Amino acid sequence: MTKFSVLILGSASASPTLNRNPTSQLVNINEQYYLIDCGEGTQSRLRAHKIKFQRLHHIFISHLHGDHYLGLIGLLQTMHLLGRTIDLHLYGPPQLKEIIDIHLKYSQSSLRYPLIFHPTQTNSSETIFENEQIEVSTLILNHRIPCTGFLFKEKNKPRKINPKAIAQHCVPKYAINGLKKGEDYIVFDTQKVIKNEELTLKPAKSRSYAFCSDTKYSQSIVPIITNVDLLYHEATFMQNEEKRAKETYHSTASQAAQVALEAKAKLLIIGHFSNRYLKLDGLLAEAKTIFENTELALENSIFEIEETQ
Amino acid sequence: MTKFSVLILGSASASPTLNRNPTSQLVNINEQYYLIDCGEGTQSRLRAHKIKFQRLHHIFISHLHGDHYLGLIGLLQTMHLLGRTIDLHLYGPPQLKEIIDIHLKYSQSSLRYPLIFHPTQTNSSETIFENEQIEVSTLILNHRIPCTGFLFKEKNKPRKINPKAIAQHCVPKYAINGLKKGEDYIVFDTQKVIKNEELTLKPAKSRSYAFCSDTKYSQSIVPIITNVDLLYHEATFMQNEEKRAKETYHSTASQAAQVALEAKAKLLIIGHFSNRYLKLDGLLAEAKTIFENTELALENSIFEIEETQ
Repeated sequence: MTKFSVLILGSASASPTLNRNPTSQLVNINEQYYLIDCGEGTQSRLRAHKIKFQRLHHIFISHLHGDHYLGLIGLLQTMHLLGRTIDLHLYGPPQLKEIIDIHLKYSQSSLRYPLIFHPTQTNSSETIFENEQIEVSTLILNHRIPCTGFLFKEKNKPRKINPKAIAQHCVPKYAINGLKKGEDYIVFDTQKVIKNEELTLKPAKSRSYAFCSDTKYSQSIVPIITNVDLLYHEATFMQNEEKRAKETYHSTASQAAQVALEAKAKLLIIGHFSNRYLKLDGLLAEAKTIFENTELALENSIFEIEETQ
Repeated sequence: MTKFSVLILGSASASPTLNRNPTSQLVNINEQYYLIDCGEGTQSRLRAHKIKFQRLHHIFISHLHGDHYLGLIGLLQTMHLLGRTIDLHLYGPPQLKEIIDIHLKYSQSSLRYPLIFHPTQTNSSETIFENEQIEVSTLILNHRIPCTGFLFKEKNKPRKINPKAIAQHCVPKYAINGLKKGEDYIVFDTQKVIKNEELTLKPAKSRSYAFCSDTKYSQSIVPIITNVDLLYHEATFMQNEEKRAKETYHSTASQAAQVALEAKAKLLIIGHFSNRYLKLDGLLAEAKTIFENTELALENSIFEIEETQ
């Protein structure tokens, strides 16, 4: 069974507090790491979790508010100092490149590894990364400045070979790949067709994770995240601060839960808590009244998405 | 007795490690705070020490390597979010302003308090701040990019009134200020001169702190820091890495101690340790063979300079 998990490195909004760090999350899909946002102090938290920086190849930045990227420059520089030579892919708003360049310029440094920058845009959702197993698309959020969420989605998995049936029908090796793809098997000598379903088992379902960081309540993302397994949605405020949430282009816990409900998410995790909330029970309780299967995206929590048939 | 102390907020070089943070120090002179350098995570450390950000009015940045300023943008933004309206004075290389401006531009933010920027230069030492009690001057260091240290120096203190002698000579109130400044007292009726020394006591000595961050071994700073009470000097490497120190424009523990010896410092504290040194005993022992009165500038240490006659 392959892994699909999300490690919360930071859950605070705006400013770090003593116990909460600004936003950052580490997605682990089949032992491939994907870093989402990189608030100040992210590299220290990665070290605390013994995550080797060399294993980071893709970093996704949602928007250019400091609490979502101010730890990035230090992380890039540390990778350089550690002697990295392999590519690093960075996805984020176009201006992020300019910000990195000005820091490098005045520190008179150049990174000794290729930093490959992929600018995101906020006109429409698009696939920004894919490999054999997953694809990552942007979600267009409604924040004070251009901001995207990210949807991590496993591709359809190959059907599973049924070893007993394969042996029974004497299926030769060359036909196996076709079977995994869903093709029927045609016996070479007789041209007899054996249905794929007789020789294979249903693959595990494709899993998905949607990261919705810093946004007003917005229904427009619902279609693209419908049936998502795990939904992270910011919940900066409680509902009695709805006006403040609207003014600052943030969501309340109720609104996050409403999105989860409409999207038929399996599990909702909420975060980006305003530092006015010393205890978070109220935010959780509020979300649960609308969407029961909600948890707090607390620092150092790991949310695993199990593989199911 | 007025306070003069230095709190170490970070002692690491280049990258934070699990136990060491990049450079930052808080100088407290008579309950006025001065922040020197602001590596990533400085605001969290200030919070851990319960330092109210509103009490920071002056921040000094030595140079534009990330480990000395990457925590600054977040700190400035937090001050904004906390509702600060009072002036903040920032001293550092001219390009620091450009870096701050680009972050503010792309986060579409403007600080709601005046940020008054004082560019430093590296042609010659100059006084960049003074008030009634102290003055702060730059020290020209020899690093890969322009870099200044900072010398904090109490001004000459007023002589202390000797109450017994004042009563004995019936000195009127109007003459007191002159006496404090060192003037003699001339009796109004008789024009008799009473020597200042008969009416006053020697003031406490003026204290000083020199911060020498990121520099090759350089004798040129010795004249300006001679007889300094407390000297912080970087000691990134041990002497067996002298070549590497030279190449990277850093110092060894021996070299830091040599500067302390030549400057006749009272106490040397060393920091900015390379993360190759898990234990710091070797660095300390090496410095002590040249300058006995050396201590490690460890995270959370406070170095008090006592007032003496």
